[in-house]
Amino acid sequence: MAPGLAALHDALSREHDVFVVAPEREQSAVGHAITLADPLLVHKLSPKAGFNGYAVSGTPADCVKLALHELMPEPPDLVASGINVGANLGFNLLYSGTVSAANEASLQGIKAMAISLGTRQDPDFSYAARFAAHLVKNWDILGPYSQTPLNVNVPALAPDKIKGVRFVRQSQARLTERFVPRTDPWGRTYYWQAGETMGKDGGLDADFPALMAGYVTITPMAHDFTNNEALDLLRTTSLDLPQP
Amino acid sequence: MAPGLAALHDALSREHDVFVVAPEREQSAVGHAITLADPLLVHKLSPKAGFNGYAVSGTPADCVKLALHELMPEPPDLVASGINVGANLGFNLLYSGTVSAANEASLQGIKAMAISLGTRQDPDFSYAARFAAHLVKNWDILGPYSQTPLNVNVPALAPDKIKGVRFVRQSQARLTERFVPRTDPWGRTYYWQAGETMGKDGGLDADFPALMAGYVTITPMAHDFTNNEALDLLRTTSLDLPQP
Repeated sequence: MAPGLAALHDALSREHDVFVVAPEREQSAVGHAITLADPLLVHKLSPKAGFNGYAVSGTPADCVKLALHELMPEPPDLVASGINVGANLGFNLLYSGTVSAANEASLQGIKAMAISLGTRQDPDFSYAARFAAHLVKNWDILGPYSQTPLNVNVPALAPDKIKGVRFVRQSQARLTERFVPRTDPWGRTYYWQAGETMGKDGGLDADFPALMAGYVTITPMAHDFTNNEALDLLRTTSLDLPQP
Repeated sequence: MAPGLAALHDALSREHDVFVVAPEREQSAVGHAITLADPLLVHKLSPKAGFNGYAVSGTPADCVKLALHELMPEPPDLVASGINVGANLGFNLLYSGTVSAANEASLQGIKAMAISLGTRQDPDFSYAARFAAHLVKNWDILGPYSQTPLNVNVPALAPDKIKGVRFVRQSQARLTERFVPRTDPWGRTYYWQAGETMGKDGGLDADFPALMAGYVTITPMAHDFTNNEALDLLRTTSLDLPQP
Protein backbone atom coordinates (compact mmCIF):
# COMPACT_ATOMS: atom_id res chain seq x y z
CA MET A 1 0.00 0.00 0.00
CA ALA A 2 1.22 3.50 -0.78
CA PRO A 3 2.88 5.03 2.29
CA GLY A 4 0.69 8.15 2.14
CA LEU A 5 -2.46 6.05 2.17
CA ALA A 6 -1.08 3.89 4.99
CA ALA A 7 -0.31 6.96 7.11
CA LEU A 8 -3.81 8.37 6.54
CA HIS A 9 -5.34 4.99 7.35
CA ASP A 10 -3.41 4.70 10.59
CA ALA A 11 -4.26 8.21 11.76
CA LEU A 12 -7.99 7.90 11.02
CA SER A 13 -8.42 4.35 12.29
CA ARG A 14 -7.56 5.38 15.83
CA GLU A 15 -11.05 6.82 16.23
CA HIS A 16 -12.95 5.61 13.15
CA ASP A 17 -13.72 2.46 11.21
CA VAL A 18 -11.77 2.83 7.97
CA PHE A 19 -12.63 1.00 4.76
CA VAL A 20 -9.95 1.28 2.08
CA VAL A 21 -10.82 1.30 -1.65
CA ALA A 22 -7.75 2.33 -3.61
CA PRO A 23 -6.32 2.09 -7.11
CA GLU A 24 -4.03 -0.91 -7.36
CA ARG A 25 -1.42 1.15 -9.25
CA GLU A 26 -0.22 4.71 -8.75
CA GLN A 27 -2.51 7.09 -10.66
CA SER A 28 -0.52 10.20 -11.46
CA ALA A 29 -2.34 13.17 -13.02
CA VAL A 30 -5.30 11.05 -14.11
CA GLY A 31 -7.69 13.92 -13.39
CA HIS A 32 -11.33 13.00 -13.00
CA ALA A 33 -11.04 10.06 -15.39
CA ILE A 34 -13.48 7.19 -15.06
CA THR A 35 -13.17 3.80 -16.72
CA LEU A 36 -15.88 2.98 -19.25
CA ALA A 37 -14.04 1.09 -21.99
CA ASP A 38 -12.62 -1.60 -19.70
CA PRO A 39 -14.09 -3.57 -16.80
CA LEU A 40 -13.03 -2.82 -13.24
CA LEU A 41 -11.26 -5.66 -11.46
CA VAL A 42 -11.28 -5.73 -7.66
CA HIS A 43 -9.07 -7.57 -5.19
CA LYS A 44 -9.96 -7.88 -1.54
CA LEU A 45 -7.12 -6.67 0.67
CA SER A 46 -5.73 -9.34 2.94
CA PRO A 47 -6.95 -8.83 6.52
CA LYS A 48 -3.48 -9.96 7.58
CA ALA A 49 -2.11 -6.74 6.11
CA GLY A 50 -4.18 -4.82 8.64
CA PHE A 51 -6.46 -3.14 6.09
CA ASN A 52 -10.15 -3.69 5.43
CA GLY A 53 -11.12 -3.08 1.83
CA TYR A 54 -10.27 -3.49 -1.83
CA ALA A 55 -7.74 -2.66 -4.53
CA VAL A 56 -9.38 -1.64 -7.83
CA SER A 57 -7.95 -1.68 -11.35
CA GLY A 58 -9.32 1.82 -12.08
CA THR A 59 -8.88 5.50 -11.26
CA PRO A 60 -9.53 7.31 -7.95
CA ALA A 61 -12.99 8.40 -9.18
CA ASP A 62 -13.78 4.79 -10.16
CA CYS A 63 -12.81 3.69 -6.64
CA VAL A 64 -15.24 6.11 -5.02
CA LYS A 65 -18.12 5.16 -7.31
CA LEU A 66 -17.52 1.44 -6.87
CA ALA A 67 -17.01 1.75 -3.10
CA LEU A 68 -20.28 3.60 -2.58
CA HIS A 69 -22.39 1.47 -4.89
CA GLU A 70 -20.95 -2.04 -4.74
CA LEU A 71 -18.17 -2.65 -2.28
CA MET A 72 -19.21 -1.05 1.02
CA PRO A 73 -22.02 -2.55 3.08
CA GLU A 74 -23.33 0.97 3.73
CA PRO A 75 -22.18 4.45 2.67
CA PRO A 76 -19.38 5.99 4.76
CA ASP A 77 -19.69 9.17 6.82
CA LEU A 78 -16.75 10.69 4.99
CA VAL A 79 -14.36 9.95 2.12
CA ALA A 80 -10.70 10.86 2.68
CA SER A 81 -8.44 10.80 -0.39
CA GLY A 82 -4.67 10.80 -0.11
CA ILE A 83 -2.17 11.49 1.21
CA ASN A 84 -0.86 12.51 -2.20
CA VAL A 85 2.86 12.94 -2.77
CA GLY A 86 3.05 16.49 -4.12
CA ALA A 87 0.76 19.47 -3.56
CA ASN A 88 -2.47 19.98 -5.53
CA LEU A 89 -2.83 23.70 -6.16
CA GLY A 90 -4.32 26.19 -8.59
CA PHE A 91 -5.31 25.02 -12.04
CA ASN A 92 -3.54 21.74 -11.34
CA LEU A 93 -6.67 20.66 -9.47
CA LEU A 94 -7.94 19.78 -12.93
CA TYR A 95 -5.21 17.14 -13.25
CA SER A 96 -5.46 15.65 -9.78
CA GLY A 97 -6.78 12.15 -9.19
CA THR A 98 -6.62 12.76 -5.43
CA VAL A 99 -8.89 15.80 -5.73
CA SER A 100 -11.22 14.01 -8.17
CA ALA A 101 -11.96 11.33 -5.58
CA ALA A 102 -13.13 13.98 -3.11
CA ASN A 103 -15.21 15.72 -5.79
CA GLU A 104 -16.76 12.42 -6.87
CA ALA A 105 -17.75 11.59 -3.29
CA SER A 106 -19.29 15.05 -2.94
CA LEU A 107 -21.32 14.53 -6.13
CA GLN A 108 -22.67 11.41 -4.40
CA GLY A 109 -23.65 13.42 -1.32
CA ILE A 110 -20.83 12.21 0.94
CA LYS A 111 -18.58 14.49 3.01
CA ALA A 112 -15.10 14.44 1.48
CA MET A 113 -11.57 15.76 1.60
CA ALA A 114 -8.42 15.41 -0.48
CA ILE A 115 -5.12 15.73 1.33
CA SER A 116 -1.72 16.27 -0.26
CA LEU A 117 1.81 16.79 0.99
CA GLY A 118 3.87 19.55 -0.60
CA THR A 119 6.91 17.53 -1.63
CA ARG A 120 7.89 14.62 -3.82
CA GLN A 121 11.20 13.92 -2.08
CA ASP A 122 11.49 11.80 1.08
CA PRO A 123 7.91 12.50 2.13
CA ASP A 124 7.13 12.38 5.85
CA PHE A 125 3.36 11.96 6.15
CA SER A 126 3.09 12.03 9.95
CA TYR A 127 2.02 15.66 10.42
CA ALA A 128 -0.35 15.59 7.43
CA ALA A 129 -1.99 12.40 8.74
CA ARG A 130 -2.39 13.91 12.18
CA PHE A 131 -3.87 17.04 10.65
CA ALA A 132 -6.34 14.95 8.61
CA ALA A 133 -7.64 13.36 11.82
CA HIS A 134 -7.87 16.81 13.44
CA LEU A 135 -9.88 18.14 10.51
CA VAL A 136 -12.30 15.21 10.61
CA LYS A 137 -12.82 15.83 14.33
CA ASN A 138 -13.58 19.51 13.64
CA TRP A 139 -15.73 18.99 10.53
CA ASP A 140 -18.56 20.98 12.13
CA ILE A 141 -16.73 24.25 11.38
CA LEU A 142 -18.20 23.81 7.89
CA GLY A 143 -21.66 24.47 9.33
CA PRO A 144 -24.23 24.43 6.51
CA TYR A 145 -21.45 23.64 3.99
CA SER A 146 -20.61 20.25 5.50
CA GLN A 147 -21.10 18.57 2.10
CA THR A 148 -18.52 20.84 0.48
CA PRO A 149 -15.43 18.83 -0.49
CA LEU A 150 -12.19 20.21 0.93
CA ASN A 151 -8.84 20.37 -0.82
CA VAL A 152 -6.12 20.26 1.85
CA ASN A 153 -2.41 20.81 1.27
CA VAL A 154 0.20 20.40 4.01
CA PRO A 155 3.69 21.92 3.73
CA ALA A 156 6.61 19.50 3.88
CA LEU A 157 8.07 21.21 6.95
CA ALA A 158 8.87 20.17 10.48
CA PRO A 159 5.74 20.65 12.62
CA ASP A 160 7.22 23.57 14.54
CA LYS A 161 7.92 25.39 11.27
CA ILE A 162 4.29 25.20 10.06
CA LYS A 163 2.72 28.61 10.56
CA GLY A 164 -0.91 27.49 10.93
CA VAL A 165 -3.97 26.90 8.77
CA ARG A 166 -5.34 29.19 6.10
CA PHE A 167 -8.65 28.90 4.26
CA VAL A 168 -7.85 29.95 0.72
CA ARG A 169 -9.23 30.23 -2.77
CA GLN A 170 -7.80 28.25 -5.67
CA SER A 171 -4.98 30.31 -7.16
CA GLN A 172 -4.06 30.53 -10.83
CA ALA A 173 -0.87 28.55 -10.25
CA ARG A 174 -0.25 26.07 -13.03
CA LEU A 175 2.27 23.71 -14.53
CA THR A 176 4.89 25.38 -16.60
CA GLU A 177 5.10 23.75 -20.00
CA ARG A 178 8.26 21.78 -20.38
CA PHE A 179 8.69 18.87 -22.74
CA VAL A 180 11.99 17.02 -22.76
CA PRO A 181 12.61 15.39 -26.14
CA ARG A 182 14.39 12.04 -26.43
CA THR A 183 15.24 9.90 -29.42
CA ASP A 184 14.33 6.22 -29.65
CA PRO A 185 16.76 3.61 -31.07
CA TRP A 186 15.10 4.07 -34.48
CA GLY A 187 15.74 7.81 -34.59
CA ARG A 188 12.21 8.91 -33.74
CA THR A 189 11.57 11.78 -31.33
CA TYR A 190 9.36 11.33 -28.27
CA TYR A 191 8.70 13.56 -25.26
CA TRP A 192 8.64 13.52 -21.48
CA GLN A 193 6.32 16.05 -19.86
CA ALA A 194 8.21 17.67 -17.00
CA GLY A 195 6.63 20.96 -15.94
CA GLU A 196 6.83 22.52 -12.48
CA THR A 197 3.97 24.25 -10.67
CA MET A 198 4.42 28.01 -10.69
CA GLY A 199 2.26 30.64 -9.04
CA LYS A 200 0.86 33.46 -11.04
CA ASP A 201 -1.16 35.45 -8.60
CA GLY A 202 -2.18 36.33 -5.18
CA GLY A 203 -1.16 36.69 -1.62
CA LEU A 204 -1.94 34.54 1.36
CA ASP A 205 -5.61 34.35 0.37
CA ALA A 206 -4.72 31.87 -2.42
CA ASP A 207 -3.53 28.26 -2.21
CA PHE A 208 -0.11 28.33 -3.88
CA PRO A 209 1.35 31.39 -2.14
CA ALA A 210 -0.05 30.32 1.24
CA LEU A 211 1.46 26.83 1.02
CA MET A 212 4.79 28.27 -0.10
CA ALA A 213 4.71 30.57 2.94
CA GLY A 214 4.42 27.56 5.27
CA TYR A 215 0.67 27.30 5.92
CA VAL A 216 -1.63 24.31 5.74
CA THR A 217 -4.13 25.36 3.06
CA ILE A 218 -7.80 24.38 2.84
CA THR A 219 -9.99 25.23 -0.16
CA PRO A 220 -13.70 24.35 -0.16
CA MET A 221 -14.64 23.23 -3.67
CA ALA A 222 -17.55 23.42 -6.11
CA HIS A 223 -17.90 21.74 -9.50
CA ASP A 224 -19.47 24.37 -11.68
CA PHE A 225 -17.49 25.26 -14.80
CA THR A 226 -19.93 28.00 -15.87
CA ASN A 227 -18.38 31.41 -16.53
CA ASN A 228 -21.41 33.45 -15.46
CA GLU A 229 -20.14 36.83 -16.61
CA ALA A 230 -19.50 35.59 -20.13
CA LEU A 231 -22.86 33.82 -20.06
CA ASP A 232 -24.67 37.06 -19.21
CA LEU A 233 -23.12 38.71 -22.26
CA LEU A 234 -23.78 35.80 -24.61
CA ARG A 235 -27.43 35.74 -23.64
CA THR A 236 -27.76 39.17 -25.24
CA THR A 237 -26.64 37.73 -28.61
CA SER A 238 -28.03 35.34 -31.18
CA LEU A 239 -26.22 32.59 -33.04
CA ASP A 240 -28.89 30.59 -34.84
CA LEU A 241 -27.53 28.88 -37.91
CA PRO A 242 -29.41 29.73 -41.09
CA GLN A 243 -30.85 26.73 -42.89
CA PRO A 244 -28.71 25.83 -45.91
CA MET B 1 -9.22 9.08 -38.05
CA ALA B 2 -12.35 9.27 -35.89
CA PRO B 3 -15.32 10.31 -38.06
CA GLY B 4 -16.27 13.17 -35.69
CA LEU B 5 -12.77 14.62 -35.98
CA ALA B 6 -12.78 14.16 -39.76
CA ALA B 7 -16.11 16.00 -40.08
CA LEU B 8 -14.86 18.88 -37.93
CA HIS B 9 -11.61 19.02 -39.93
CA ASP B 10 -13.45 19.15 -43.25
CA ALA B 11 -15.86 21.88 -42.12
CA LEU B 12 -13.15 24.12 -40.67
CA SER B 13 -10.59 23.59 -43.43
CA ARG B 14 -12.85 25.26 -45.99
CA GLU B 15 -11.88 28.67 -44.60
CA HIS B 16 -8.99 27.94 -42.27
CA ASP B 17 -5.64 26.17 -42.09
CA VAL B 18 -6.24 23.20 -39.82
CA PHE B 19 -3.48 21.41 -37.94
CA VAL B 20 -4.59 18.12 -36.35
CA VAL B 21 -3.07 16.84 -33.09
CA ALA B 22 -5.18 13.97 -31.80
CA PRO B 23 -4.91 10.99 -29.48
CA GLU B 24 -4.03 7.88 -31.46
CA ARG B 25 -6.65 5.83 -29.54
CA GLU B 26 -10.16 6.72 -28.43
CA GLN B 27 -10.01 8.45 -25.03
CA SER B 28 -13.32 7.87 -23.31
CA ALA B 29 -13.99 9.66 -20.00
CA VAL B 30 -10.31 10.38 -19.42
CA GLY B 31 -11.17 13.72 -17.85
CA HIS B 32 -8.37 16.26 -17.65
CA ALA B 33 -5.71 13.55 -17.35
CA ILE B 34 -2.16 14.33 -18.44
CA THR B 35 0.62 11.80 -18.95
CA LEU B 36 3.57 12.16 -16.60
CA ALA B 37 4.58 8.57 -15.86
CA ASP B 38 5.10 7.57 -19.49
CA PRO B 39 6.67 9.33 -22.46
CA LEU B 40 4.49 10.71 -25.24
CA LEU B 41 5.03 9.12 -28.63
CA VAL B 42 4.07 11.07 -31.74
CA HIS B 43 3.41 9.95 -35.30
CA LYS B 44 3.18 12.37 -38.18
CA LEU B 45 -0.04 11.92 -40.10
CA SER B 46 0.47 10.93 -43.69
CA PRO B 47 -0.12 13.91 -46.01
CA LYS B 48 -1.72 11.40 -48.37
CA ALA B 49 -4.56 11.00 -45.88
CA GLY B 50 -5.38 14.68 -46.37
CA PHE B 51 -4.55 15.78 -42.83
CA ASN B 52 -1.70 17.93 -41.61
CA GLY B 53 -0.58 17.01 -38.09
CA TYR B 54 0.20 14.31 -35.56
CA ALA B 55 -1.23 11.38 -33.65
CA VAL B 56 -0.09 11.30 -30.00
CA SER B 57 0.02 8.39 -27.54
CA GLY B 58 -1.55 10.49 -24.76
CA THR B 59 -4.77 12.18 -23.65
CA PRO B 60 -6.61 15.15 -25.21
CA ALA B 61 -4.96 17.54 -22.71
CA ASP B 62 -1.54 16.08 -23.58
CA CYS B 63 -2.28 16.72 -27.26
CA VAL B 64 -3.02 20.40 -26.65
CA LYS B 65 0.08 20.95 -24.53
CA LEU B 66 2.34 19.16 -26.97
CA ALA B 67 0.78 20.87 -29.99
CA LEU B 68 1.27 24.35 -28.57
CA HIS B 69 4.77 23.82 -27.24
CA GLU B 70 6.47 21.35 -29.57
CA LEU B 71 4.55 20.30 -32.65
CA MET B 72 3.11 23.47 -34.20
CA PRO B 73 5.37 25.98 -35.88
CA GLU B 74 3.37 28.79 -34.24
CA PRO B 75 0.38 28.86 -31.89
CA PRO B 76 -3.04 28.50 -33.53
CA ASP B 77 -5.76 31.15 -33.45
CA LEU B 78 -8.22 28.67 -31.98
CA VAL B 79 -8.34 25.08 -30.68
CA ALA B 80 -11.41 23.04 -31.65
CA SER B 81 -11.91 19.75 -29.80
CA GLY B 82 -14.31 17.06 -31.04
CA ILE B 83 -16.72 16.22 -32.45
CA ASN B 84 -17.36 13.91 -29.51
CA VAL B 85 -19.80 11.04 -29.83
CA GLY B 86 -22.18 11.69 -26.94
CA ALA B 87 -23.13 14.94 -25.21
CA ASN B 88 -21.00 16.54 -22.48
CA LEU B 89 -23.37 18.05 -19.94
CA GLY B 90 -23.64 18.93 -16.28
CA PHE B 91 -21.23 17.40 -13.81
CA ASN B 92 -20.08 15.05 -16.57
CA LEU B 93 -17.87 17.89 -17.81
CA LEU B 94 -15.49 16.64 -15.12
CA TYR B 95 -15.13 13.34 -16.97
CA SER B 96 -14.80 14.70 -20.50
CA GLY B 97 -11.57 14.50 -22.43
CA THR B 98 -13.13 16.60 -25.20
CA VAL B 99 -13.90 19.42 -22.77
CA SER B 100 -10.50 19.11 -21.08
CA ALA B 101 -8.76 19.88 -24.38
CA ALA B 102 -10.67 23.15 -24.68
CA ASN B 103 -9.96 24.04 -21.06
CA GLU B 104 -6.27 23.24 -21.47
CA ALA B 105 -6.03 25.49 -24.54
CA SER B 106 -7.73 28.27 -22.61
CA LEU B 107 -5.23 27.91 -19.75
CA GLN B 108 -2.56 28.49 -22.40
CA GLY B 109 -4.29 31.67 -23.58
CA ILE B 110 -5.74 30.24 -26.80
CA LYS B 111 -9.37 30.59 -27.91
CA ALA B 112 -11.05 27.21 -27.63
CA MET B 113 -14.23 25.21 -28.00
CA ALA B 114 -15.34 21.64 -27.34
CA ILE B 115 -18.09 20.28 -29.54
CA SER B 116 -20.15 17.15 -28.88
CA LEU B 117 -23.05 15.40 -30.59
CA GLY B 118 -25.92 14.20 -28.42
CA THR B 119 -26.01 10.57 -29.46
CA ARG B 120 -23.86 7.45 -29.47
CA GLN B 121 -25.84 5.62 -32.15
CA ASP B 122 -25.30 6.14 -35.89
CA PRO B 123 -23.90 9.64 -35.40
CA ASP B 124 -24.34 12.10 -38.27
CA PHE B 125 -21.82 14.88 -37.70
CA SER B 126 -22.72 17.10 -40.66
CA TYR B 127 -24.90 19.68 -38.86
CA ALA B 128 -22.57 19.83 -35.84
CA ALA B 129 -19.57 20.38 -38.12
CA ARG B 130 -21.38 23.13 -40.02
CA PHE B 131 -22.38 24.75 -36.72
CA ALA B 132 -18.75 24.64 -35.51
CA ALA B 133 -17.64 26.59 -38.58
CA HIS B 134 -20.51 29.05 -38.04
CA LEU B 135 -19.45 29.59 -34.42
CA VAL B 136 -15.82 30.20 -35.39
CA LYS B 137 -16.98 32.79 -37.93
CA ASN B 138 -19.05 34.54 -35.24
CA TRP B 139 -16.50 34.30 -32.43
CA ASP B 140 -16.67 38.08 -31.90
CA ILE B 141 -20.01 37.72 -30.10
CA LEU B 142 -17.84 36.81 -27.11
CA GLY B 143 -16.61 40.39 -26.98
CA PRO B 144 -14.22 40.83 -24.05
CA TYR B 145 -14.66 37.13 -23.17
CA SER B 146 -13.08 35.84 -26.38
CA GLN B 147 -10.60 33.73 -24.35
CA THR B 148 -13.43 31.91 -22.57
CA PRO B 149 -13.58 28.28 -23.67
CA LEU B 150 -16.97 27.20 -24.98
CA ASN B 151 -18.66 23.87 -24.37
CA VAL B 152 -20.97 23.21 -27.33
CA ASN B 153 -23.52 20.38 -27.58
CA VAL B 154 -25.54 19.69 -30.71
CA PRO B 155 -28.74 17.60 -30.65
CA ALA B 156 -28.79 14.48 -32.82
CA LEU B 157 -31.78 15.74 -34.83
CA ALA B 158 -32.46 16.54 -38.43
CA PRO B 159 -31.47 20.19 -39.07
CA ASP B 160 -35.07 21.31 -39.48
CA LYS B 161 -35.94 19.84 -36.06
CA ILE B 162 -33.26 21.84 -34.23
CA LYS B 163 -34.94 24.71 -32.42
CA GLY B 164 -32.01 27.13 -32.33
CA VAL B 165 -29.10 28.01 -30.06
CA ARG B 166 -29.24 28.61 -26.34
CA PHE B 167 -26.49 30.00 -24.10
CA VAL B 168 -26.81 28.00 -20.91
CA ARG B 169 -25.21 27.33 -17.56
CA GLN B 170 -23.82 23.92 -16.63
CA SER B 171 -26.69 21.92 -15.12
CA GLN B 172 -26.42 19.42 -12.28
CA ALA B 173 -27.05 16.52 -14.65
CA ARG B 174 -24.83 13.55 -13.83
CA LEU B 175 -24.20 9.91 -14.55
CA THR B 176 -26.51 7.60 -12.71
CA GLU B 177 -24.52 4.99 -10.86
CA ARG B 178 -24.87 1.60 -12.42
CA PHE B 179 -22.34 -1.20 -12.16
CA VAL B 180 -22.97 -4.41 -14.01
CA PRO B 181 -21.22 -7.32 -12.28
CA ARG B 182 -19.74 -10.20 -14.25
CA THR B 183 -17.83 -13.28 -13.16
CA ASP B 184 -14.49 -14.27 -14.63
CA PRO B 185 -13.63 -17.91 -15.48
CA TRP B 186 -12.03 -18.29 -12.02
CA GLY B 187 -15.19 -17.22 -10.18
CA ARG B 188 -14.07 -13.69 -9.34
CA THR B 189 -16.49 -10.77 -9.65
CA TYR B 190 -15.64 -7.72 -11.76
CA TYR B 191 -17.69 -4.73 -12.88
CA TRP B 192 -18.66 -2.74 -15.95
CA GLN B 193 -19.56 0.90 -15.35
CA ALA B 194 -22.71 1.67 -17.31
CA GLY B 195 -24.48 4.78 -16.03
CA GLU B 196 -26.69 7.10 -18.07
CA THR B 197 -26.71 10.89 -17.84
CA MET B 198 -29.78 12.13 -15.99
CA GLY B 199 -30.84 15.70 -15.37
CA LYS B 200 -31.52 16.89 -11.90
CA ASP B 201 -32.45 20.52 -12.29
CA GLY B 202 -33.38 23.41 -14.33
CA GLY B 203 -35.26 24.67 -17.31
CA LEU B 204 -34.01 25.90 -20.64
CA ASP B 205 -31.35 28.02 -18.94
CA ALA B 206 -29.31 24.86 -18.22
CA ASP B 207 -27.40 22.55 -20.57
CA PHE B 208 -29.10 19.18 -20.12
CA PRO B 209 -32.74 20.30 -20.34
CA ALA B 210 -32.01 22.64 -23.26
CA LEU B 211 -30.29 19.93 -25.30
CA MET B 212 -33.10 17.48 -24.55
CA ALA B 213 -35.56 20.10 -25.80
CA GLY B 214 -33.78 20.27 -29.16
CA TYR B 215 -31.48 23.28 -28.80
CA VAL B 216 -27.80 23.61 -29.60
CA THR B 217 -26.32 24.51 -26.19
CA ILE B 218 -23.28 26.71 -25.53
CA THR B 219 -21.75 27.12 -22.08
CA PRO B 220 -18.82 29.50 -21.53
CA MET B 221 -16.46 27.90 -19.01
CA ALA B 222 -14.17 28.86 -16.15
CA HIS B 223 -11.79 26.64 -14.18
CA ASP B 224 -12.17 27.80 -10.62
CA PHE B 225 -13.19 25.07 -8.18
CA THR B 226 -13.44 27.48 -5.23
CA ASN B 227 -16.75 27.44 -3.34
CA ASN B 228 -16.69 31.10 -2.33
CA GLU B 229 -19.66 31.00 0.03
CA ALA B 230 -18.17 28.16 2.04
CA LEU B 231 -14.82 29.95 1.99
CA ASP B 232 -16.33 33.10 3.48
CA LEU B 233 -17.70 31.06 6.38
CA LEU B 234 -14.49 29.09 6.95
CA ARG B 235 -12.46 32.28 7.13
CA THR B 236 -14.36 33.15 10.31
CA THR B 237 -13.09 29.95 11.98
CA SER B 238 -9.74 28.60 13.19
CA LEU B 239 -8.34 25.13 12.80
CA ASP B 240 -4.74 25.34 13.93
CA LEU B 241 -3.46 22.00 15.14
CA PRO B 242 -2.07 22.12 18.70
CA GLN B 243 1.53 20.96 19.00
CA PRO B 244 1.66 17.38 20.34
